[in-house]
Amino acid sequence: MPVILALWEAKMGESLEDLLLAAAYVLDAQYNRNVPFETSPQAIRLYYFYNHWTTQVATYFFICVDLALALFEEPALFPLPFLATSIAEILCLTAFFGRLIHFAKITPQMVFWKDTKNICIMVTIVLTLIDLIIYGSLESINVRSIRWSRALRPVFLINFPESRQIRRAFRSLRNTLPDILYVFLLFMFSVLMFSLMALKLFGDRGLKTAEGSPYFENILEIAFELYVLVTTANSPDVMMPAYDFNWWYSLYFIIYIIINTYIFMSVFLAVVYNNYRKHLKNEIRKLAYLKRHKMIAAFNVLKVKVGADFVVEEAQWRRLAQVVAPDMSSAHLELLLRISDEGQKGHVDKMNFLRLADLLNIHVVTISIKRHPLEAWMPRVYQSSASLLVQKMVRHRIFVWVFDVIILINAIFIALDEKNSLISYAEWLFLSLYIIEILLKLYTYDPKAYFERKQFWNWGELVWGRKGISSREYNSQQILDIVLILRILRLLRVIVSIQRFRVIVTTLINIGPAMLTFGGLVFVVYYVFAIIGMEVFHGKVQFFDPNFTAPDALVCGNPALQGSAFARGRYCKNNFNDLASAFTVLTELTVAWFLNFLLLANGFALVTHQAAKLYFILFHIVVVILIVNIFIAFVLEAFFVAYSLEKSEVETAIEKKIQELGVGIQEEELQDGKLTDHVDTKDRGLHGDDGDNKRKALKGLYCRIASKKYRTVDALLQRMFESEIAPENEGSALDEILNFSPSDMCPKNPNFENSA
Amino acid sequence: MPVILALWEAKMGESLEDLLLAAAYVLDAQYNRNVPFETSPQAIRLYYFYNHWTTQVATYFFICVDLALALFEEPALFPLPFLATSIAEILCLTAFFGRLIHFAKITPQMVFWKDTKNICIMVTIVLTLIDLIIYGSLESINVRSIRWSRALRPVFLINFPESRQIRRAFRSLRNTLPDILYVFLLFMFSVLMFSLMALKLFGDRGLKTAEGSPYFENILEIAFELYVLVTTANSPDVMMPAYDFNWWYSLYFIIYIIINTYIFMSVFLAVVYNNYRKHLKNEIRKLAYLKRHKMIAAFNVLKVKVGADFVVEEAQWRRLAQVVAPDMSSAHLELLLRISDEGQKGHVDKMNFLRLADLLNIHVVTISIKRHPLEAWMPRVYQSSASLLVQKMVRHRIFVWVFDVIILINAIFIALDEKNSLISYAEWLFLSLYIIEILLKLYTYDPKAYFERKQFWNWGELVWGRKGISSREYNSQQILDIVLILRILRLLRVIVSIQRFRVIVTTLINIGPAMLTFGGLVFVVYYVFAIIGMEVFHGKVQFFDPNFTAPDALVCGNPALQGSAFARGRYCKNNFNDLASAFTVLTELTVAWFLNFLLLANGFALVTHQAAKLYFILFHIVVVILIVNIFIAFVLEAFFVAYSLEKSEVETAIEKKIQELGVGIQEEELQDGKLTDHVDTKDRGLHGDDGDNKRKALKGLYCRIASKKYRTVDALLQRMFESEIAPENEGSALDEILNFSPSDMCPKNPNFENSA
Repeated sequence: MPVILALWEAKMGESLEDLLLAAAYVLDAQYNRNVPFETSPQAIRLYYFYNHWTTQVATYFFICVDLALALFEEPALFPLPFLATSIAEILCLTAFFGRLIHFAKITPQMVFWKDTKNICIMVTIVLTLIDLIIYGSLESINVRSIRWSRALRPVFLINFPESRQIRRAFRSLRNTLPDILYVFLLFMFSVLMFSLMALKLFGDRGLKTAEGSPYFENILEIAFELYVLVTTANSPDVMMPAYDFNWWYSLYFIIYIIINTYIFMSVFLAVVYNNYRKHLKNEIRKLAYLKRHKMIAAFNVLKVKVGADFVVEEAQWRRLAQVVAPDMSSAHLELLLRISDEGQKGHVDKMNFLRLADLLNIHVVTISIKRHPLEAWMPRVYQSSASLLVQKMVRHRIFVWVFDVIILINAIFIALDEKNSLISYAEWLFLSLYIIEILLKLYTYDPKAYFERKQFWNWGELVWGRKGISSREYNSQQILDIVLILRILRLLRVIVSIQRFRVIVTTLINIGPAMLTFGGLVFVVYYVFAIIGMEVFHGKVQFFDPNFTAPDALVCGNPALQGSAFARGRYCKNNFNDLASAFTVLTELTVAWFLNFLLLANGFALVTHQAAKLYFILFHIVVVILIVNIFIAFVLEAFFVAYSLEKSEVETAIEKKIQELGVGIQEEELQDGKLTDHVDTKDRGLHGDDGDNKRKALKGLYCRIASKKYRTVDALLQRMFESEIAPENEGSALDEILNFSPSDMCPKNPNFENSA
Repeated sequence: MPVILALWEAKMGESLEDLLLAAAYVLDAQYNRNVPFETSPQAIRLYYFYNHWTTQVATYFFICVDLALALFEEPALFPLPFLATSIAEILCLTAFFGRLIHFAKITPQMVFWKDTKNICIMVTIVLTLIDLIIYGSLESINVRSIRWSRALRPVFLINFPESRQIRRAFRSLRNTLPDILYVFLLFMFSVLMFSLMALKLFGDRGLKTAEGSPYFENILEIAFELYVLVTTANSPDVMMPAYDFNWWYSLYFIIYIIINTYIFMSVFLAVVYNNYRKHLKNEIRKLAYLKRHKMIAAFNVLKVKVGADFVVEEAQWRRLAQVVAPDMSSAHLELLLRISDEGQKGHVDKMNFLRLADLLNIHVVTISIKRHPLEAWMPRVYQSSASLLVQKMVRHRIFVWVFDVIILINAIFIALDEKNSLISYAEWLFLSLYIIEILLKLYTYDPKAYFERKQFWNWGELVWGRKGISSREYNSQQILDIVLILRILRLLRVIVSIQRFRVIVTTLINIGPAMLTFGGLVFVVYYVFAIIGMEVFHGKVQFFDPNFTAPDALVCGNPALQGSAFARGRYCKNNFNDLASAFTVLTELTVAWFLNFLLLANGFALVTHQAAKLYFILFHIVVVILIVNIFIAFVLEAFFVAYSLEKSEVETAIEKKIQELGVGIQEEELQDGKLTDHVDTKDRGLHGDDGDNKRKALKGLYCRIASKKYRTVDALLQRMFESEIAPENEGSALDEILNFSPSDMCPKNPNFENSA
């Protein structure tokens, strides 16, 4: 059943070439040439229903409900009885099971059972049910046990086929583990060595810490303190007693820190980064080969023999393009056809057909010049010399600059005390200036284009305009002031107009979507740690309202914390008493493990058993050593790629053709509009605001390649790798491609061409 | 005067190809063929005297004295009168000036005055003299002024021609500055935006910090706090008041930290790393071209015409190799000649001549099998079956393993309480076991080889042996215990025998020398900051002996610190009262800026003016954002190179020839001995301990290429780049090479081949 398989693959992959392949099958089936329509109508209906947005949304809804249950279960933010939460959980599990059954129906049995994802979900459902039954029956006889299966809930989030990106992030985490492990062992060896040394050096001197407890007298204590010192959390406190005793002892700590903090932490980053690149390259290579494989498959479905070669006929090509990109303008389609069918022979050869996915991936902006509504309404007034002067003025760069300066001055005024009456008058002045600016711009530019083109900045302006009035009324609501400050973001436009800044800002914006993946990864890890933390540390530390003067308020409701740095720092709200608090604590630990590590770990270790330290160390290893390093590796790679960015071959071909056809616009003319391309996501807007009358004079349609923007860094890397595949290459077999391993790659002479 | 210029260049560069070129000139001059001996004998004498070790040592001595003067000047560790220090300083300046004059004598005037280094030194000498005169005359009328020129002293350290490596590190610092600046501006913009937002969000709520001071009410205070938050030093303290007020406000801080800490700090690293690589590549390219250029020059000096080609005669080649590497064994020389003169035609052609420097750079270990002295002394006893059994046993792997396990057990015993009498008896047991091990090894292996081959481990064993006895006598001296622990480093051998660990350890050892360069760089920066810090913060904070109960002891002698976290943490010894203390404070700031930044900055800001914060922020930018990132970039690059390490073409050629000549040893046979290659620095030791009798049977000389060890990562990179230069390339002109800039490099298609 090639159709359903193709559709299935297309949905799974959702890339353009998958869609192309599926469309090719559909077209072919419609014309009923050589592929029989094997699948039953019921299977197709099931398939469509599985991929329908309602069932997908329902699945996500149940995943969210399942995860959110932690908010209502003991220890709860909003307590609900166990019966309610367990019924909700069983509902969710039923939904997951139903979804899985549905998936099994539309997937070949072999494929279904070979997929560990499905097995994972099933095992988790069973485990959760067992846990629910045990907990419920113990609860009924009033024995409190642990709901351990709650830590497994993220499994559903990860393993449903829709969460491909998070799974990929997990894969890169898993791939890094073996190499990291070796460095970690070496690192632990070093820490233990230094601990032994410290024991011998300081153990018998009877030194005391600032809190008066014995200093460095127990090997495990020392190892823990030294591990924390790697995070630099307890420096220089851990060093002060020895340093006070003798200046030379500080050398011990300096050497320790150089070796374990600086060198080993860099090695961790190096290993993670190296692995990240290696596996990224492999995945990209896989993708590139898969793409080629699918495009060849699509070609083989549609090909007809003309002369000696197989080709795809122009009519078929058109239909295919229209199925895949139904909202493409006909001018755009024509442009692509002219590029693909260079000799205008009425058919597209294999080489050009294989490029189709790339061609469709390139955003081509079609520009049509529209007249201003005022011009249509009263042409004589609008075209008068005074009006033209105003328009010219508004279009001039200096107009923009003047208002940028005004915004800057406004920013300074905001920073100053607003109680001063002069400043509040100035606010009114700024407001009127902004309104004048908006009116002038509306007068000069086509209003529709104005809002479409720079949605972001302009809506900001409007919001500000509204705010300027409302803030007089609700002066106490500072949140509205924030909206005002968002307007200062317009200054980003000034920054971005400088080339050097542009690379940085563009890259930062490009990596935005991929960062959401990391968000998912971090969420899953946090969730597991939060559930465990809630089970272990629940209720140990309590937060009291500062106005409520309970005797325990100062020690967070726990006498064990008397006099501790934890209580002194008023950290009581950093607790594990509900999911939201637990997440905040974990965020703090990630962010400022340096400091909090010790404070929190010690705080919690004071009130619970020493094993609490293990929890915090484990969290440090997983989140800081692994995830943060992968994140840094990702940002590094994104920047290296951005610094070495060039136009691709396909882009060049398109640009050449655009120029040949005489519908091109010089890039330089669009310099001013460039920011827009980087900021808004929809590039098919109208581009008629650059005030060159030359363009106005020409009627019709203009095309240009939209900014060098890629949805993901991966897309960019993929493009780079494609050049390595020979076009004649028929592609490896599908199985072979899917089993590529990093070590398969042909070893190149290692010269570092990544930056130049 | 080509000879002296060549010598001069050789001394300046000190690379093998420089020496080769100089030697070629000398050889040529000796044979008096076509280069006239232009230089006067006096110039040569002056030149040799300049490069003589005595004058070099004297220069370094005076530099050290000059830098050390800060220890004796106010604020002093060991106070000396101003007269004494100023006389010492004038002496140093005279010495520097003399050295400069000397340098001018042996350098062409043009070269001397074009060199900024010399100008720098002269200007610094003059400035220091002016400062000395002003300070001295003010001192005589009892007006205290500032010795500002002291911060300039590191100039002498940097600018003398001998400190090439530190200058290079500074160059990479300077190269990175422009790019970093742009990111920094963007980063500051972001911080200011968030400050404005915080002012509006929290400013009017009347919140209080844990210390009871107003929270977020002044824009500059906010900006400072948020800057510190980037370093995560004051998280979550800075967030707690808002978080206590409303949970949702924590989102503001989380977003801030994600953007400014994680993303911007990664961008800093990315930019630094990108620059580092770019400029490293350029420098390496320069070096590679220079090397080629010099080798061609050497060839042109020595070439004679044989047939149609220019070649170098074998006799001349031999003389050249002997001049350059006088301590090379004749077998090694023969091997190189056989490789260079493949057809045994009696001369070396250009291609092979150009490889000479590489050939000489490769360590070839010549192995000669020696007999054990005991064997020579009493062969029958030594060759008896019982003796042979002992030898076989000692040579067996299990023997090594058993003692590794014993060391491990010993390590655990050390960690336990040593007051236990059982354990102190166990110590004696371990000691006797180690002595038995040493004796058995001495019996089996040639004693000379034993000490040469694994100096490190064995000397450690001996020291331990000595210690074992002495520790009974001086039980109070724990420092001796440390020596004991060093022995546990032997366990590293176990670790290194695992392939994965070996890469890490080898790379760490390889980058050791280059880390000294960073040490120099950091020293210079620290020195400047320490001098400034001593001028500004001198005496503000005082340390009192803990046993001395002065009323001010708890507030570090300054009432302003009453109740501050600085005093509470007993940080009094972190002060700027002398050079040593200042260095320690700066180290702490580098290492744990996260925490100390706030504590120290606030501590010092309390006792001095607010501008103190500026000092700490500046230090943070220079040391943490720049230097630490360059260091990380360096470690990353070293590891990427290590992970992609392969044998070079030249090495392969040599190995092939060794095999052809039948003097090779299989690498596998040496697996066990491999650690040695990575650890000790001298590879010309004897290798006869692997217990294969086959080798013993063969008499004579064996060669193999020593471990893939390079003195520096640079050497490795250089080799990689050499493959890009076509051998026919006559090389660019010298001036052209020296003016290469990173942007000159041909833009390659950016595919990431660095790792595979």
